[in-house]
Amino acid sequence: MNDDWPVAEMTVEECWQMLREHEFGRLGFRLVVEQHITPINYAVDRDAMGRESLLFRTAPGGKLLAGVLGAGVAFEIDDFAGETAFSVVVRGRARHLGEAEEHRAENVPLRPWVGTEKYDVVEIVPIEVTGRRFVLDRPWLHLRVDE
Amino acid sequence: MNDDWPVAEMTVEECWQMLREHEFGRLGFRLVVEQHITPINYAVDRDAMGRESLLFRTAPGGKLLAGVLGAGVAFEIDDFAGETAFSVVVRGRARHLGEAEEHRAENVPLRPWVGTEKYDVVEIVPIEVTGRRFVLDRPWLHLRVDE
Repeated sequence: MNDDWPVAEMTVEECWQMLREHEFGRLGFRLVVEQHITPINYAVDRDAMGRESLLFRTAPGGKLLAGVLGAGVAFEIDDFAGETAFSVVVRGRARHLGEAEEHRAENVPLRPWVGTEKYDVVEIVPIEVTGRRFVLDRPWLHLRVDE
Repeated sequence: MNDDWPVAEMTVEECWQMLREHEFGRLGFRLVVEQHITPINYAVDRDAMGRESLLFRTAPGGKLLAGVLGAGVAFEIDDFAGETAFSVVVRGRARHLGEAEEHRAENVPLRPWVGTEKYDVVEIVPIEVTGRRFVLDRPWLHLRVDE
């Protein structure tokens, strides 16, 4: 990040580090012709090949499950504070974990924040992981109300 | 919101109130076969018919502009603190404002947080606006590290 350009690309390893440090993000998917975004809790796991992926839980038979399977999805986390922000995006494919793999969700810190029952486990297998850091320019935060 | 179910639907007016109070969210769109999500700054405006919509600025000719035009998009804001959270989603269609309408972006508090140059103005015309409030169940926040 230099003085001239307020956006810097993150390395893939920096993106995974951010993904491991967070547990809340938004999933974008398309259901037939409708575009959707929904907030989810997630955790980073490794698949049988040792590759990192994301896991989340959802209601069986729900719109979310129908929407994410068989088509590309995009998942995003972000945060901002003061003069900096970041955003990490995972584009990938979603797969429904069957009984033989569901136990993977027990071995990661996948902690739903809302106490509704959620049964099915979905894995987001990444195709592309990208991240950006931003220097924010929000001078109005420093203005006093009476100025 | 009752004691038995930790998720409550927001009214459409509550959703617009939240949209007016925020200025940062995420836009989900599909570019050919790729699903994308990207963070944007936005502002609520009213179109010529007095209907509320969202405006944002983007780079001319960019991937974002190409992706959002002519197909459905979804835009999301959310926030959480302590034991409550909310998420508002606007599903709609994106249209590129021409010279005759670009001035609308000057009349709303559309304040890009990142100082890159952005020229084109895009309007998200809502088809569906939905929002949910959540009671969070995160007992681990109250755990002491040494417990």
